[in-house]
Parts: sequence; C-alpha cells; structure tokens
Amino acid sequence: MSDHDYAVETIYGLSTPSIQALIAAGRASQPALLKVGIFVCPGYMPMDINGAQSVFTIAGAEIYFIWKRRELVEGYIGWPTMPTMTFDECPDDLDVLVTGMVPPEVIEDPEVIRFFARAGQKAKYVIGTCYGSLMLGTAGLLKGRRATSNSNVVPMLPDVGAVAVGGSDVVIDDTIYTSGPATGSFDASLLVLKALRGEELAALVELAIEYDPRPPFRTGSPQLAGPEMTAISQSMTAPLNRQYHEAAKRGYARYQQMIQD
Amino acid sequence: MSDHDYAVETIYGLSTPSIQALIAAGRASQPALLKVGIFVCPGYMPMDINGAQSVFTIAGAEIYFIWKRRELVEGYIGWPTMPTMTFDECPDDLDVLVTGMVPPEVIEDPEVIRFFARAGQKAKYVIGTCYGSLMLGTAGLLKGRRATSNSNVVPMLPDVGAVAVGGSDVVIDDTIYTSGPATGSFDASLLVLKALRGEELAALVELAIEYDPRPPFRTGSPQLAGPEMTAISQSMTAPLNRQYHEAAKRGYARYQQMIQD
Repeated sequence: MSDHDYAVETIYGLSTPSIQALIAAGRASQPALLKVGIFVCPGYMPMDINGAQSVFTIAGAEIYFIWKRRELVEGYIGWPTMPTMTFDECPDDLDVLVTGMVPPEVIEDPEVIRFFARAGQKAKYVIGTCYGSLMLGTAGLLKGRRATSNSNVVPMLPDVGAVAVGGSDVVIDDTIYTSGPATGSFDASLLVLKALRGEELAALVELAIEYDPRPPFRTGSPQLAGPEMTAISQSMTAPLNRQYHEAAKRGYARYQQMIQD
Repeated sequence: MSDHDYAVETIYGLSTPSIQALIAAGRASQPALLKVGIFVCPGYMPMDINGAQSVFTIAGAEIYFIWKRRELVEGYIGWPTMPTMTFDECPDDLDVLVTGMVPPEVIEDPEVIRFFARAGQKAKYVIGTCYGSLMLGTAGLLKGRRATSNSNVVPMLPDVGAVAVGGSDVVIDDTIYTSGPATGSFDASLLVLKALRGEELAALVELAIEYDPRPPFRTGSPQLAGPEMTAISQSMTAPLNRQYHEAAKRGYARYQQMIQD
C-alpha cells in the first residue's frame, strides 16, 4: 500500500480520509465556523502560533495562514510552511487575528504594518504572543492598552504606545490578548475561545488536547530561574533584542507617519 | 520596502537576515550539531511535534521534516508543510526521532512501519507524543517497554506490545520517551535534551522559551476535568479511537509478519 492509496488532495496539500471525517464531525455541530487568521512570514516562530492553530482547530474553526504571497516560507527553523491566504484575500470578518514572533525586518515593513492596522481593527479578537506584541505595537493596535510579551520585550512596549505588564499571565485589554512565548499561545487562545463561545466549550477543548503541562526544570521565567541563569540567557539574546527594539521604534514611527498622511 | 528586499532564500523557503544570524550564533558554540528527525505525513498533528521542533531549534539542532516524498502535506488542519527529507535520505545517526499523532491510515502503512522499525532502532533517542505512541508501537519499538499516550490510547498500548502507564507524566524507558498530547512534546523534548547535553543546557532552553504555562481552566486531564466532562469528551472521540485501535492491531500484526519473513 502506498500513501497515495489513502491520501486525499485538499486545498492545503494531502490529507487522509480519517482526518477529513474528523474535521467534518467537528464542524457539523457548529452554529457558524470561526474564522481564524494566523500571520506567517519568512522566519516566523511556529511555537508562538501553534497554540492558536491547535485550540481553534479542535474548536472546529477555519484556519488561514496569511502572508503577502502564497510562497513557501521557513518557520524558525526547518519548518517549511505554505501560506494559504494573501493580505488582499483576508476577509473583513475574522474572529481572531494571531501573530507570534516575527523577525525585526517584518515588524518594521510598511506593507505588513498596513495589513495589521487594517485587519487588526476589523477582527473581533487579536492575539499577540512573544515578540508578536511588538508586531501589534508597530501597527498601532496597542496604543494606550495594557499588554505583555516575553521578559526581554516587556520594557520595550511603551515605545510602541503600550502600557507594559510583566509576569507571564495573559494580559487582556478589551479585544487584545497578549502573552509570553511558548504556551502563552495556548493560554491566550483558550481565553479568546471562552470569550467567543463560552467557558464550557473552552474547558472541553483544554481537556480534548489534554493541556496539562509538566515543565521539567521549573526555570520558565526569570523569577523561577534566578538571577545567574537569567543573566546567561539575556546575554545570549541581547544582540537580537537590540535589533527588535530599534526595529519596533522605526516601525512605530512609520505607522504614526502613515496615519498622518 | 517589499519583503523581497529583506528575504533570503534557504533550502527550506524564505527566511530573513536576522533569523539566519540567530541560527549561526546558536550553532557557533556547538560541539556537534544535534540531528533531529521529525516525522510528518498527510494529516499529521502540528501540536504534537511543535515542542520538539522548538526545543531542539533553540538548542541549535538541525531539524529534518521526514516523509516519503518532498510533497506538500496538510497538518491537521490548515498547516501546509513541506517535508525536507525522504525516508531514503534519513541519516543513520539521528540523535532524536520524533512522532506525534498521525492518522490511522499511516500507523498501519507497511512502508511507514518499515521506516520506523529501522530509523527508530538506530536513533539515539525516540519521542512519541499522543497517538504517536501507537506509531512507535506498530513498528515494534515499544515491545516490552513502559509507555504512555493520551488517556484514550493508554488502554490500547498492550495491543502493540507495550506496558501501559497512565497519568500525564513523560514515561522514560531506556531511550524511548513517550508523553501525552499538547505540551507533552515540550516536556519529553526537554528531558531528552537533558539526556543528550546535560540539565544545565536543558534548563536554559526552558528559560529561553519561557515555558511557564498557565492552563486557564485546569481541565487538562480526565482527573482534573471530572467524570461528566470526560464522558462528553470521550463520546466525541469514540469513533476516531475505534479506528485507531483497529489500525494499531492490524499494523502491529503486519510488523510481526515482516520480522518473521
């Protein structure tokens, strides 16, 4: 038996009959499918959007991977991903717009800033995970809002107009949900699902994916890791963080210029 | 500025100069790059392999997405992924071989079983997350070994030769690490990284990704969710689980036939 005996063509690539049946069963009971747009780009961080893709997939949503063009991009690293929707094709009635860490080149790209400024204002909810908060910031979406990110980025948030909040919890300000990296994407997405469809469904999805983490070393924040390990970690990412800080300031200045024009 | 002003071509698609610099910096200090093979296929579950891809990426590894052919497949759902390595190209000296949930059609595919039986015995460590444990099982890798999976699959594990262990913790038997779904992939990967490179680096990676989860509803296991919610969840996945159970038994019988021939 070759896989072509069981694989079926989808608009996204090859899938299987069992997975297609699973998708159909999950959607049969839906009043209206949730529309979830996930931003991807060259060098995007799969970890930061995976919680959203998983949680909303299990909840029966339609998932769109949005980029300028339908052209293969590399998730950091080695995760070749094909966008399924362009900026121009993005519907105005997204239920959720999601971004995780994207490279500094991208958060100051005027075309991307313009996309987020438009789509982010029209979407019912917006999720920014890790450096993704800077992406929302340079598009003006955090102006005057409470927001969080990873511990290195939190102090940069005021430079994109936000009120910075530290401490690893998801920060909710009206329809904008921001979180730290890694599983912040799961936490924020489950809370957005609660806002959209109620706690009963959201809690059921948390069970369906058996989201019951067991971090082995309990070093997942500067507070948990202590000053010595935190200093080592910060020294490793310092050059990257300087790039992000400069790009965020330039991007935010560009956005402000855009809205004046 | 268009993204083509900053995007660079990689063998995996487009990336950016900042991400390429980040990869180079992470690898500069490595004694020898870890080689991590991640199994993908039509209908594979991105959530179950994301922890491995993230943890080993941050640790500076080379990441290979392995499938029969370099042909776009759909991750469940809407995550179009391009495999970067075929079964034939897979090196014999993998440090880690990883699989998450793959459809029942795949866990009983003789060509896939043959690949896992060979590559799984040669790799230093093997990680199976969620239904991925059944994939390892039908390839004979769990024979006489303690193993776990999601709560629905745990009772099926003896039918692929394993000693079943419940309870959400990562189960380690020699070089085989199995876990439940979702963040089980992070937990198992951090523990394998500890085995390969020591606890100091593994704990530093846990900090670098700020893996400090905040499950919002505390319903991530049958024990946490209680009998009523668990019954609802199980009734929704019962048809799928029957398919998995039958496919696993057929696949394991095929494996046993293979090694007799």
